[in-house]
Order: sequence, then structure tokens, then C-alpha cells
Amino acid sequence: MKARVHITLKRGVLDPQGKTIARALGSLGFAGINEVRQGKTVEIDLAETDAAAAHSTVAAMCAKLLANPVIEDYRIDLAEG
Amino acid sequence: MKARVHITLKRGVLDPQGKTIARALGSLGFAGINEVRQGKTVEIDLAETDAAAAHSTVAAMCAKLLANPVIEDYRIDLAEG
Repeated sequence: MKARVHITLKRGVLDPQGKTIARALGSLGFAGINEVRQGKTVEIDLAETDAAAAHSTVAAMCAKLLANPVIEDYRIDLAEG
Repeated sequence: MKARVHITLKRGVLDPQGKTIARALGSLGFAGINEVRQGKTVEIDLAETDAAAAHSTVAAMCAKLLANPVIEDYRIDLAEG
């Protein structure tokens, strides 16, 4: 079973990487950019085949290692295979 | 219009960040992890309201700045608002 974890900074948390990308895009001539925010994804290929068990395992991974719950939100998508 | 760009390393490209996460999860006691790969997402809030125009702008941003087409694949999702 494959899990994809999307980790994004919470609204209101300053995102210097996003600001830098927005500035770089502007200097490349792209106009009309209101905001850019950067996040990360972690794709985990698990031996577990039960969706509910996989979800709770991945949620525990997020809480212990993958995400910083003080400043980040995360979303877990599961897919077969 | 909001665009979300998902950037992942191409299959076959070594992913040391993913390997490190897999090892760290293993040492935290999580078993049954076949593979971990890390990617990134860039959320861009555009003034453009036409989906086709927004898509081609974001594809140009990917080609010029956001992704390295030699080693990375990208996927663009568009959403209203």
C-alpha cells in the first residue's frame, strides 16, 4: 500500500522559501503572482495492506518524525499497490 | 486561480532524503517500509482566472525555475479561488 503525505506550513506561518520563489518568478518576468507557498510530500511504500491500519501507522509517523505539528499541517492519501 | 505543482524525483534517481527518512522511521520502530521518496509541492496563487492560460504559465514556471527536468517530474493541479 502506498501512502502520500502532503506537508504544508500552517496559514500565518512565514514561508521564506515561498517568498524567494515568488521573487525569482517575478524577476523572470512572470506577473500576477499573489502568493507562493512551498510544501513537501513524502511517499511511503508500506508492506501493510489494510487501509485503516496503514493510515494510523502513517499518522503516527507524521506525529513522531515527518511533520512539525506546531507549524505544519499534513494530509495523508492512500493508494493501492 | 490556485495552482499546485507536485515535483518528484524521476524513478531511478537516487533519493538520499527519502533513504534517510526510511532509516529514521526504522530506528523509531516502524516496520514494513519498502521505500520512502521525498518530493516537494509549490502552491502558486495566480491573478489569472483562465484555466488554460494559468496551466501554460505554470508549465513555463516549472521549465524555467521550479523543476529540474533532467532529474524531476512535475504535475500541475489547478483549482478555483
